[in-house]
Amino acid sequence: AARPRLNAKTTMEELKATRLITALKTPYLPNGKFDLVCYDEFLEDQIENGVEGVIVGGTTGEGQLMSWDEHIMLIAHTVNTYGREIKVIGNTGSNSTREALHATEQGFNVGMHASLQINPYYGKTSEAGMKQHFLRAMDLGPAMIYNVPARTGQDITTDIMESIAGHNNFIGVKECEGNERIAYYTSKGISCWSGNDDEAHDARHEAGAVGVVSVTSNVIPGIFSKLMGDEAQPELNQKVQNLISWLFKEPNPIGINTCLSMTGQVKPVFRLPYVPYSKEMREEGLELLKELGADVKGHEIMKAMEDSDFVILDSF
Amino acid sequence: AARPRLNAKTTMEELKATRLITALKTPYLPNGKFDLVCYDEFLEDQIENGVEGVIVGGTTGEGQLMSWDEHIMLIAHTVNTYGREIKVIGNTGSNSTREALHATEQGFNVGMHASLQINPYYGKTSEAGMKQHFLRAMDLGPAMIYNVPARTGQDITTDIMESIAGHNNFIGVKECEGNERIAYYTSKGISCWSGNDDEAHDARHEAGAVGVVSVTSNVIPGIFSKLMGDEAQPELNQKVQNLISWLFKEPNPIGINTCLSMTGQVKPVFRLPYVPYSKEMREEGLELLKELGADVKGHEIMKAMEDSDFVILDSF
Amino acid sequence: AARPRLNAKTTMEELKATRLITALKTPYLPNGKFDLVCYDEFLEDQIENGVEGVIVGGTTGEGQLMSWDEHIMLIAHTVNTYGREIKVIGNTGSNSTREALHATEQGFNVGMHASLQINPYYGKTSEAGMKQHFLRAMDLGPAMIYNVPARTGQDITTDIMESIAGHNNFIGVKECEGNERIAYYTSKGISCWSGNDDEAHDARHEAGAVGVVSVTSNVIPGIFSKLMGDEAQPELNQKVQNLISWLFKEPNPIGINTCLSMTGQVKPVFRLPYVPYSKEMREEGLELLKELGADVKGHEIMKAMEDSDFVILDSF
Amino acid sequence: AARPRLNAKTTMEELKATRLITALKTPYLPNGKFDLVCYDEFLEDQIENGVEGVIVGGTTGEGQLMSWDEHIMLIAHTVNTYGREIKVIGNTGSNSTREALHATEQGFNVGMHASLQINPYYGKTSEAGMKQHFLRAMDLGPAMIYNVPARTGQDITTDIMESIAGHNNFIGVKECEGNERIAYYTSKGISCWSGNDDEAHDARHEAGAVGVVSVTSNVIPGIFSKLMGDEAQPELNQKVQNLISWLFKEPNPIGINTCLSMTGQVKPVFRLPYVPYSKEMREEGLELLKELGADVKGHEIMKAMEDSDFVILDSF
Repeated sequence: AARPRLNAKTTMEELKATRLITALKTPYLPNGKFDLVCYDEFLEDQIENGVEGVIVGGTTGEGQLMSWDEHIMLIAHTVNTYGREIKVIGNTGSNSTREALHATEQGFNVGMHASLQINPYYGKTSEAGMKQHFLRAMDLGPAMIYNVPARTGQDITTDIMESIAGHNNFIGVKECEGNERIAYYTSKGISCWSGNDDEAHDARHEAGAVGVVSVTSNVIPGIFSKLMGDEAQPELNQKVQNLISWLFKEPNPIGINTCLSMTGQVKPVFRLPYVPYSKEMREEGLELLKELGADVKGHEIMKAMEDSDFVILDSF
Repeated sequence: AARPRLNAKTTMEELKATRLITALKTPYLPNGKFDLVCYDEFLEDQIENGVEGVIVGGTTGEGQLMSWDEHIMLIAHTVNTYGREIKVIGNTGSNSTREALHATEQGFNVGMHASLQINPYYGKTSEAGMKQHFLRAMDLGPAMIYNVPARTGQDITTDIMESIAGHNNFIGVKECEGNERIAYYTSKGISCWSGNDDEAHDARHEAGAVGVVSVTSNVIPGIFSKLMGDEAQPELNQKVQNLISWLFKEPNPIGINTCLSMTGQVKPVFRLPYVPYSKEMREEGLELLKELGADVKGHEIMKAMEDSDFVILDSF
Repeated sequence: AARPRLNAKTTMEELKATRLITALKTPYLPNGKFDLVCYDEFLEDQIENGVEGVIVGGTTGEGQLMSWDEHIMLIAHTVNTYGREIKVIGNTGSNSTREALHATEQGFNVGMHASLQINPYYGKTSEAGMKQHFLRAMDLGPAMIYNVPARTGQDITTDIMESIAGHNNFIGVKECEGNERIAYYTSKGISCWSGNDDEAHDARHEAGAVGVVSVTSNVIPGIFSKLMGDEAQPELNQKVQNLISWLFKEPNPIGINTCLSMTGQVKPVFRLPYVPYSKEMREEGLELLKELGADVKGHEIMKAMEDSDFVILDSF
Repeated sequence: AARPRLNAKTTMEELKATRLITALKTPYLPNGKFDLVCYDEFLEDQIENGVEGVIVGGTTGEGQLMSWDEHIMLIAHTVNTYGREIKVIGNTGSNSTREALHATEQGFNVGMHASLQINPYYGKTSEAGMKQHFLRAMDLGPAMIYNVPARTGQDITTDIMESIAGHNNFIGVKECEGNERIAYYTSKGISCWSGNDDEAHDARHEAGAVGVVSVTSNVIPGIFSKLMGDEAQPELNQKVQNLISWLFKEPNPIGINTCLSMTGQVKPVFRLPYVPYSKEMREEGLELLKELGADVKGHEIMKAMEDSDFVILDSF
């Protein structure tokens, strides 16, 4: 009875107070398997630079290209290694309710602190179906709801969101529909995280967002930590807009994958259907990275690379 | 050497000449497993009414809710049972290239005649990535490419399509972007099937489409067979527009699932995130079905049903 | 209604009359996947030489090294390609009842004619548990029961066998405990197939066995077809004993895998934990194969091979 | 850099010094899923009574009835919850080398301290194959080798064992072939754990074993902790022989499953092919449990139960 609890636990309050959450890049070995040595080093650096939570296997981390076997393993690995220091949010959503529920249950069983839940993309469904989907997923544990119509083909309307926001395990929204929507939710007491890096600073300091689920913080975690701080940082925010713009010139995570290969933080291995930016775009990006100097890990060694440096895999 | 080949085989020419393809509904037992007895009866009726090909596990057949284990089994079952009479097209695409290639290889190994390939929905990718995705899938066997931006969040542009259309295994396009696009492709020698039931008659008789991949033909295969015949049938086409409109009031396959439950052709079992139409909408649909009389199988017994008649499942 | 049934079907009577069943070798490509081109050619040759049925993914075919995904695909492939000519028996048993039932259901769904069911090896169970295991598996379709205590660590006693033999779907027994046991079962009206190639001729002609489930018929199908014929062939039987003895010097399928690599019928690819016979043993076997002359397919080109000719794989 | 390592780590020395290892029972819910609430309480009690390590998903824990998805999850759960207090050994062996390697890699990725590796049961292989199998598995991390010919049908001979014992990751042997074999290994510097509860006390105090991998310690962990202590306890050892004998009257884990249901420590749920002991045997066991009094958790409420109290499942 007097033994300390040694497992990774958190609370709804702590989850709702997590400002900087990185949608973590998943690094690969040349054989296509996860590069966990790289992953751990990468995550150490994230933590040292102020990242407070991570999405494991988000769209950025290419959960859509993982077997669930890999995905749950990565969540468990993250919990075991860093779950006592940061919030571990598993992207265990799916367009199949069965899959979402099973993966979410597995994720909680291995210790994740919260799940990220998506509305049924591609297959889509009715409002009534969407509510059922989310409510049953939230029954399993704390959940952040993710709205990204440009990917899913279907908006989670404010009506739907408000109808499910009363659930005990509702943390809040990762919202990509802009700061007006975020301001509205904030006015209703619904916690928000911006899903758009270019708007995230303003989302936090003007629209009431708690923070951001960020792609860009994979490469400049320290800067994003400042942007999510207590004070607004309009100049710093302005300074990173060009890099952000470059990172999203093609569907994410193509930009960030290319970028982290260039800085040497990950091996230049791509799982199809992702392929790196062209040489021309990489050279453009290199200039933008140089402007940020030592805030970019790997700035001393980064380069535009040759096309032949990249490994592109369709089976692994 | 003189033994006849007894397996299910076809040719690119036959595939390109298949006019009426049903995106087949997958019927379930109350425990959520496939109802194969019902499936076979349903498919017999489809064949007797002029259906020449089927998509197994399309979005209508809820491939997105199947394990691959179930999905490949259903393709194999269909090949074994009816593959010597109709074209069996497996929806073995995926937003993960690895998954698409593996499933497509499995599908061809069990005898399917062609695959349906989708661009990477949700995860999305660049043009270069999309081309790689399709070309590698086509290397495995005949493929129809499916363009449905309202689901995938990303158009397969005519540029992309034309860049891959020269592949030996390119059958053609299931196109949901309208008859103007179809007319353009036809002018370029690219075979098309309409993916929109309301426009399918005109696609065939005015825009040069080979035929249709139809949802509505699940319920009125005989009428759709006539609409895809040698002669235009503008009056018949007009007659079914209200039913078509009703079937798509919520994201497909909610309408067709509700409809076939009402006609008694399948058990009223839904896999989440799909839930049936409301009672009010079902009553509306019942009137539309009555107008079509004996062309609707089950017309003698069909009814609006009670909400409590439906089984809604989240695990199975 | 007048349409002929075109799928692969059979009857209990036909199954019970199948004399020569090959426990089919699964050939691999150098990447470890199935070599289906080789498989089909191999099976054509088997059929032309009198093989009437096959076990797909038996211990000889290394079902124990397959994912179920691969295993069910191979069953479906076999049904589609040759299921209208021979009996296709899927080794869908398992020491896990859940797995056995699921795989057996999948196998029947894709058209296999019968399953081979094993008692729970390694995990073992009580008599009551074993009966439940078999009875539930037989509820799904025709089943042959496989008794091989040297592998399972547990005999299916005659008491247990007789207690389940009344099930409608009980075909009979593949028995490795010898011809006395087979004679006993025969006296009780239970159909038997010998599981020991060295005793199979006598099992059929003296102990009343229907036939054999043979490993050796992978390499000399024509001879085994004669051994299972209407007339006893004691001299021919004597002639093949040395080869049989050589094939089982190490646990099957090591011998047959080595042998078929030597004759060139399959690529010399091994999935671990199997490794080929030593060079010395291969040279010994080559002499035995030469004695059988043209009855061995590949006799013109067969050789002892070098160790470096073999590919040994632990992942694929 | 100054941050403490918070993950679950151990060393070869600590692993080799672990005396009492329970082959942990996996408790189920009536729907057949794992009862993790029960599991955690059970494990707390084990720890409080001196258990220093656990095998997760051993034959006792019915790893043979788990999907790998379940199995790896249970290992990860155990690591996260108790991996900082006890040694977590995952039974990630398999008769398929591919499966063994994949599961073992997954297990280490989620933090397990060591794997338990079995020789290829049922499929069996040659000595050369067996060595390859073990050596490749040990390349992935610390491993205990498990020899149980009564289950596998094949002895891991002392020759084989000694040929692999030099591997850096070789912890030692879980040996079921008796104390003479253990004494021999001890003389060769190979660490041993008895796999036979009835002989374990003597194995430790007379034959040089480090300790035991115990089934019986699921029900009387405190007593087994004393038996594995620094001093021999011949009387205590004698006292538990009748219970041990009763627990193994049918293949393990039937006895321990029945026993823990009777004591109320787990819900009376069986996954087939396991079924509980008969009422008569249960009554016999109840008397034996009573003799041990307060050393049996649940002794105040334990009972023989009715057959109808048990839930027997074949799918879940």
